[in-house]
Amino acid sequence: MNYLMILTIIGKVLCVEAVFMLPPMVISLCLGEYGAASALVLSAAAAVIAGLPLSMIKPPKRDIFARDGLVTVGAAWVFVSVFGALPFFFSGAIPGFVDSLFESASGFTTTGATVLAEIESLPKGILFWRCFTHWLGGMGVLVFLMILNPLTAKNSGENMHLLRAESPGIRTSKLVPRMKDSATILYLIYIGMTLLQVIMLLFGGESVYDSVCIAMSTAGTGGFSAYNDSMASFSSYTQWVTTVFMLLFSINFSIWFMLLLGQWRRALSNGELRTFLLIVAGAVGLLMFSTRGMFSGIGESFRVCAFNTASIISTTGYCTVDFDLWPEFARMLMVMLMMIGACAGSTGGGAKVIRIKLLIKIIHRSIHNAFNPNKVNLIHEDGEIIDDRTVSSVNSYFLIYFTIIALVSLLVSLDGFSFESSFSAVVSCINNVGPGLGAVGAVRNYGGFSVFSKLLLTLTMITGRLELYPILVFLVPSVWKK
Amino acid sequence: MNYLMILTIIGKVLCVEAVFMLPPMVISLCLGEYGAASALVLSAAAAVIAGLPLSMIKPPKRDIFARDGLVTVGAAWVFVSVFGALPFFFSGAIPGFVDSLFESASGFTTTGATVLAEIESLPKGILFWRCFTHWLGGMGVLVFLMILNPLTAKNSGENMHLLRAESPGIRTSKLVPRMKDSATILYLIYIGMTLLQVIMLLFGGESVYDSVCIAMSTAGTGGFSAYNDSMASFSSYTQWVTTVFMLLFSINFSIWFMLLLGQWRRALSNGELRTFLLIVAGAVGLLMFSTRGMFSGIGESFRVCAFNTASIISTTGYCTVDFDLWPEFARMLMVMLMMIGACAGSTGGGAKVIRIKLLIKIIHRSIHNAFNPNKVNLIHEDGEIIDDRTVSSVNSYFLIYFTIIALVSLLVSLDGFSFESSFSAVVSCINNVGPGLGAVGAVRNYGGFSVFSKLLLTLTMITGRLELYPILVFLVPSVWKK
Repeated sequence: MNYLMILTIIGKVLCVEAVFMLPPMVISLCLGEYGAASALVLSAAAAVIAGLPLSMIKPPKRDIFARDGLVTVGAAWVFVSVFGALPFFFSGAIPGFVDSLFESASGFTTTGATVLAEIESLPKGILFWRCFTHWLGGMGVLVFLMILNPLTAKNSGENMHLLRAESPGIRTSKLVPRMKDSATILYLIYIGMTLLQVIMLLFGGESVYDSVCIAMSTAGTGGFSAYNDSMASFSSYTQWVTTVFMLLFSINFSIWFMLLLGQWRRALSNGELRTFLLIVAGAVGLLMFSTRGMFSGIGESFRVCAFNTASIISTTGYCTVDFDLWPEFARMLMVMLMMIGACAGSTGGGAKVIRIKLLIKIIHRSIHNAFNPNKVNLIHEDGEIIDDRTVSSVNSYFLIYFTIIALVSLLVSLDGFSFESSFSAVVSCINNVGPGLGAVGAVRNYGGFSVFSKLLLTLTMITGRLELYPILVFLVPSVWKK
Repeated sequence: MNYLMILTIIGKVLCVEAVFMLPPMVISLCLGEYGAASALVLSAAAAVIAGLPLSMIKPPKRDIFARDGLVTVGAAWVFVSVFGALPFFFSGAIPGFVDSLFESASGFTTTGATVLAEIESLPKGILFWRCFTHWLGGMGVLVFLMILNPLTAKNSGENMHLLRAESPGIRTSKLVPRMKDSATILYLIYIGMTLLQVIMLLFGGESVYDSVCIAMSTAGTGGFSAYNDSMASFSSYTQWVTTVFMLLFSINFSIWFMLLLGQWRRALSNGELRTFLLIVAGAVGLLMFSTRGMFSGIGESFRVCAFNTASIISTTGYCTVDFDLWPEFARMLMVMLMMIGACAGSTGGGAKVIRIKLLIKIIHRSIHNAFNPNKVNLIHEDGEIIDDRTVSSVNSYFLIYFTIIALVSLLVSLDGFSFESSFSAVVSCINNVGPGLGAVGAVRNYGGFSVFSKLLLTLTMITGRLELYPILVFLVPSVWKK
């Protein structure tokens, strides 16, 4: 293991994080929130004090292999979450450190699960930081670092390992030959789409502050809101804009790149995109059917169901109604949508539509093989043969995913919340959604859990965000052997 | 597909089933339950009328391949359940046919889920039939047929396919070279252990009727009881005897065969057995801790927790207390134990301990492979290398298993029962346990579900009992192609 190299990367990440604490600090200063501003300065200083010496290590070897890549990414997300918690803690916005850590990890992992019941009374700079963590987390701190990092051009293998460990999706397809350029393009699309949403929200009459906060939480498919009732009080226009953008940010960014290049046909024939849109349409229909009679008209029903479907399947977690009060079928469907999640290569979480597609194909094949054991059936997607390694990685993903859900649910149930609360909290956290059912329902929060459960759920959020492995490697002793 | 051969086998199975309706009929006659007796005669007649002509088909080809084996087994269990429902329906013990079918399938699959709230007032002959279906289902109607079937000696390949499709466990290890002899030995062990339990219960002062009913439900790890409160009213002695036998019937029968041959060391070094005992001990300890203070002393606590652990992990489903009232951790643990289930090659259901062991090993390997992609790691169990085909079948098993649980839970939730009720009902049914949580808790029943849900859960029970494939093949259109 190249520990020195890992430490220097983490050091750099922390320095970058410190820089990102400056915008919310400026906002706090402008609004006269001096307590919040000094908390942010203090936090930034702590990140620099910890990060700068590390970043100045000159590792004798600069090589990074798969194992180092996983460990780096896992450790970096933990460190970023710990230092990102400081503004909440120092400002007194969230009294306990574990609670602050939960909120911070929930932000960076774009989960949006909160321990706070009262949000509106907090300083605006702190609330900005809260939404900003979503935006930063959305594309991954390390992809960001990669663009800044002068190493990139020299050693693209190293960055490939980092990106493979971190970037969402099962296939890391390079958009353009050079890694750095790929990352830059992704980021430009991300920034461009965020700005577009801000403009459209401003157009609808929202304030600059609200527009930016909503757009950042949407872009990261996070779900933190600066208001106690999430998105319920905003206008229909704002809700519709947000619905559309939640879906846009759930789509593989390489589709947007294809569209930029004018490859309309190629983009629109993408199998995952089509399935995603089909699932969204089906879910909206089923929810409208299940909640019939609960809204004042077909228009409101459509708006509410579309918003909440988009919010859950994109794993954003914004709410406009308390879906915990919906019929059991609708509630169960919401949990299923959490598990499906967004498309690979987007900022959304969940198992990802492509994995669900492959899961169904793998199951279909295994039933075939049961009665025809000697026939070889290949699995196709978008006209390409899916190789054995990918099939096996999808297999492993789901096995680990379900095992984690089962074990963490059992441990969280020690807190004594209802079965559905514990279970849906874990499902919501591992899929980076935010709200669940029961005690963690749309209008409730995670504040009631024990310190143990909060730490466990924090790790679960990070594990889910990093698609399992970068955190799990820490649990395997032999990783630490020579 | 060799349809004629499949039909003739199903015909024979139905004739055998008709014969098995005679013992409960005799009991009803002796007790003067003439209504029940005539219902049983009528049912037996129906089975013969349907079965005899089919059984007399002389198929030109007698070959059976894997696909035919799966279809035969799946169809046979459906037919047996349908005709096994007739005594309940004709006697009026269960008014609706779908309810009767649910009860019958629950019996043959050794699930023990009931639609009945009031049991004690029913005719004893019908209650005997109810427990008898457990005993018959326990080792599989087809294994039984195989012993009777003169085809056996001629064509052992055919029977191998049937056994592989039906017998519990992931590895069909022949105990002795000839298939027929293996089946005979398994059945002798089964009958011997059942008799031993009957004798021990008689020794404790139970009536012959009660002893036989309890032993039959225990042997099949079923869980139907002739009493409304399941096993709660029986003496501590009877509860302890049942606890021990539930565990004995959860162990791979080849272990008992080894013990009969005096191979003590080989039997006791079996990895699955050790893990099973470890899980049982751990679960009893955790339940005692979680329910501390709920019982009058350590003795009662130990008895209750041991009984209910044995009942759930063996997938029997007997109850002595309403564990639905236990703390959330204990309730969640019960659901986990349902999923683990018994050892392969036993009469118990669930995923099976060996699969859980392999699941953990597969996960461990996949984490290793994530950071060391080019190293080949073999999976061992009991000193043997587990081949790729077995690993892949374990993978597929769990993927299908979790997918079925998710989809069926969603459909069952249409009935509007709570999340935990719908979810635990499905988990309980697919693992052939019986009771679940909430609306299907230990002192409740499945009577409140809609016809749709009851049919779905009936199929789920059979699917779980046959380890998924024999029912799933019916859903794949290409099975029906030439």
